[in-house]
Amino acid sequence: MTVHVPTHDAIETMMLDIGQRARAAAKAVRDAPGAARTFALKAMAARIRAAAPEILAANAADLERGRRDGLSAPMMDRLALDSARLEAIAAGVDAIAAQDEPLGAVIADWTRPNGLRIQRVRIPVGVIGIIYESRPNVTADAGALCIRSGNCVILRGGSDAIDSSTALTAALRLGLQDAGLPADAIQLVPTTDRAAVGSLLRGLGGAVDLIVPRGGKSLVARVQDEARVPVLAHLEGLCHTYIHTGADAAKAVALTVNAKMRRTGICGSTETLLLDRSIAADLLPVIAAELTARGCELRGDAAAQAIVPMTAATEEDWRTEYLAPILAVRVVDGIEAAITHIATYGSGHTDCIVTEDAEAAERFLREVDSAIVLVNASTQFADGGEFGFGAEIGIGTGRLHARGPVGAEGLTTYKYLVRGTGQTRP
Amino acid sequence: MTVHVPTHDAIETMMLDIGQRARAAAKAVRDAPGAARTFALKAMAARIRAAAPEILAANAADLERGRRDGLSAPMMDRLALDSARLEAIAAGVDAIAAQDEPLGAVIADWTRPNGLRIQRVRIPVGVIGIIYESRPNVTADAGALCIRSGNCVILRGGSDAIDSSTALTAALRLGLQDAGLPADAIQLVPTTDRAAVGSLLRGLGGAVDLIVPRGGKSLVARVQDEARVPVLAHLEGLCHTYIHTGADAAKAVALTVNAKMRRTGICGSTETLLLDRSIAADLLPVIAAELTARGCELRGDAAAQAIVPMTAATEEDWRTEYLAPILAVRVVDGIEAAITHIATYGSGHTDCIVTEDAEAAERFLREVDSAIVLVNASTQFADGGEFGFGAEIGIGTGRLHARGPVGAEGLTTYKYLVRGTGQTRP
Repeated sequence: MTVHVPTHDAIETMMLDIGQRARAAAKAVRDAPGAARTFALKAMAARIRAAAPEILAANAADLERGRRDGLSAPMMDRLALDSARLEAIAAGVDAIAAQDEPLGAVIADWTRPNGLRIQRVRIPVGVIGIIYESRPNVTADAGALCIRSGNCVILRGGSDAIDSSTALTAALRLGLQDAGLPADAIQLVPTTDRAAVGSLLRGLGGAVDLIVPRGGKSLVARVQDEARVPVLAHLEGLCHTYIHTGADAAKAVALTVNAKMRRTGICGSTETLLLDRSIAADLLPVIAAELTARGCELRGDAAAQAIVPMTAATEEDWRTEYLAPILAVRVVDGIEAAITHIATYGSGHTDCIVTEDAEAAERFLREVDSAIVLVNASTQFADGGEFGFGAEIGIGTGRLHARGPVGAEGLTTYKYLVRGTGQTRP
Repeated sequence: MTVHVPTHDAIETMMLDIGQRARAAAKAVRDAPGAARTFALKAMAARIRAAAPEILAANAADLERGRRDGLSAPMMDRLALDSARLEAIAAGVDAIAAQDEPLGAVIADWTRPNGLRIQRVRIPVGVIGIIYESRPNVTADAGALCIRSGNCVILRGGSDAIDSSTALTAALRLGLQDAGLPADAIQLVPTTDRAAVGSLLRGLGGAVDLIVPRGGKSLVARVQDEARVPVLAHLEGLCHTYIHTGADAAKAVALTVNAKMRRTGICGSTETLLLDRSIAADLLPVIAAELTARGCELRGDAAAQAIVPMTAATEEDWRTEYLAPILAVRVVDGIEAAITHIATYGSGHTDCIVTEDAEAAERFLREVDSAIVLVNASTQFADGGEFGFGAEIGIGTGRLHARGPVGAEGLTTYKYLVRGTGQTRP
C-alpha cells in the first residue's frame, strides 16, 4: 500500500500535519506515569499478537513486490516475517515494557550555600524522527523504545517494507489507545516519496527535536547535508581487532574469528586486523587458516603477505566497511602504531586490543577515542542487548549526547529543578 | 589588527589549516594528565597578568575604532577593559584552574553475566568552535573552559574586539606552552571576514566536533541554517515568573522585582509576568509600583490594564525577549493556563513559579519543559556560577547533550570501556 500524493507541496503539508499531531501528543506521553507507558507497551505487544494474520498478509504483499522488483536474497530475508519472527517482535516489545523506567531519575542533587536545592532530572527528548530501511522489526523496536522513554515518534520506514510497517504501526497505535495514550504518539509516514524525508530533516516547523537515521552511507550523507535539527548519528562500524605482543595466542585466534565471522553483516564486526610484528609470524598462519576454512578472504600489507599468501591490501581496504567475509590485515610496530592506524582509518565505533599486558590494555583503553573500546572481548559485543540495555535504537558514532549502544536512556535528556524559599540574586 | 585575506578560497584554505592544527593538538591535550591542564590554566592566568600593558593597549585600539564606528554606549562598555576588569578575567581563569577535573570520571560501572566489565567514562568532545560577539572576557573564559575539559578550541570573536581578543589569545597560548601543551589547542580566527564563520560551520573538513554560538538572533539563524556539525544552542531567554494563587505576597513582589530588574540585559531576566486572577487585584498594584519606581515599563493584557493603567500588550509582546526594563503582564486562570502560556510562548530557558502550595510547585516543576524550572527563586539564578559550575560557556536551550548552564562538564562526552578475559559472542 502506498498513499500517492501528487506534489511536493502536498507532501510538505501532510508532513507538517504529522509534526503537529506528534507535538500535540507529546505532553500527554511525557506527563503520563511510567505505569501507563508500561501498560501501553504490554498492550502494544498483545495487539501485535492479535493482528498476526493482518501483519503476515501485509508482509506477504511486501515480499511479493520484492520478488517482482528483484530484491536480493539477503534483502528478502531481512524483509520476511513468519509466526516465529512476529512472536520475537512482540516479545521484544514485552521486554521493553519490563525495563526500568528511565524518566524522573535524579541524576544529580545538591544544595547551594544560599539554600537553593538543585536537581538534574531525566526527561524525554520530545518528538523523534526515525529514518530506517527494510527490517520490519525496527518499526516495533523503535516505537516501543520511544514510548518507554516518554517520547513521540515519527517513523519513516523503507519502501520495501511499507505494508508490513503500516500493519505493525496500526497494532502499536491500538496498544497506545488501550492505555488511554494518544495514538499519534507513534506515526508512520504514509508515503514512500523521498520528499517526505527532506521534510522530516527540515524539522517539520520545529516539531521534531531529534533525527535518528539508520541506514547506509547514502542516507547518512543526505542526513548530514539536509538536517536542520540535531541528529543521533549511526554511521559505519569500521572496527579493529589489534593483537598486541602480549596477547594470549588461543584468545587471539578465538577472538579474531568471532569478531570477524560470527556475523559479518553487523556494524560490530571487525573489518581490519592489526598484529604486532613480533607475534605475527607465529599467530597469523593459525588465524588465517581458521578464517580461510570459514570462507573469509584476507587482504594484507606486504608484511602479512610475506607470512601468509593473500591478496594485497590497498589504502582503500583500510577505509572499507566490508560487512562481508573479508578481512584487511596489517602488521604494525607496536601499540603506538596500532592506535595511530585506528585514529586514522577507524570510524570511532568499536575497537579491541588482545593482550595480557595490563599496562598496554589501559593505554589502549585510554587513548583509543572510539565509542566502545574493548580488551580481550569480541567487537561483536557492540550491541545494546549485550550491554544489558534491552533493545537498542542503534550504535551512536557521533560524539554528542548518546554514544555506543543507544537504548531508552539514550533517548532522554534532562532539566534542572531548583527549589527555593524566596531567594533573590544579589 | 585585521589580517586581510583576499578571496574566500584563501579564507577556506586558512580555516582548513586552523582545523588541522586543532585536530593535531587534540590528542596531546586529551591525553595530558589533569595536573598538566591545571598547570596550563594557572600559567594562562599569569600570562594574562604579565601581558596587561599589551592587552590594554590592544583594547584601547578596539575602543578607538569603536568610537570611530559609532558603537552604542552599552556596546562600548561591554568592550572596555581596565586593570580591574583584566584582573577579573585572570582570576576567572584561576578559578577554572581550581575546578575539579571532569575527565576520567566513571559515570557508570557494571559487570555482565558473562563477566564483561563495562564502564562509561567521561572524555573530551574534541575540537570545539566558539562563535561570539564583542565581550573580550569570553575569549579567556571559553579558552580556559575548553582546556579544563580537555578540548581544543577555535575561537571566532566579534570584529569589534578583535585586537583585545588577539592579545588575550596570545597570552593564553603562552600559558599552554609553559605547561608543555601545544599552543594550537587555543586558536583565534585571525580575520573578521564573515566567510570564516561559514567555513567553521561546515566543520573544517571533519576537524570540528561541536559549534557553540553565543550571540543574537541573526547569528543563531545563520548557525541553524548553515551548520553541518552538532551545535550547542544558546538561544534567547524568554523567561517567565508565574505568581500562583498560593504565593506569599512579599516573596512574589521581591522575586518579580529581582527577576526583572537586577540586570535586564541577561538571558535569565524575566520578560513576562503571569499572575493568577484570584490574587492579581491585590498583588499587581504593589508589583507595578515597585517596578515603575525602578523605571520599568509594563505592558499588560486587558485584565492587567483593568487593575493598573499600563500599555496594552500585543501578541508580539508574549514572544519578545526585551533585554530591557520592560515587562509583559498577563492575568491567567490558574496553573494549567500558566503552563500552557509558557509552552506556547517560552523559549525553554528558565521559568519560575511563586507559591507556598507544594502540590502546585511539584506540578509546575514536572510539566514545564524548560532547561531550568524554579520554585520561589529569581529567574536570574540561571547562571553557571550560581549553580556552582564556576565559569560557563552559556545557557544551553537545545534539548540534546548539555542543557541549562554549561560549564566544563557540559563540554565532555563519554566512551565505554569493556574489559574481558577472552569472551566471544555466542
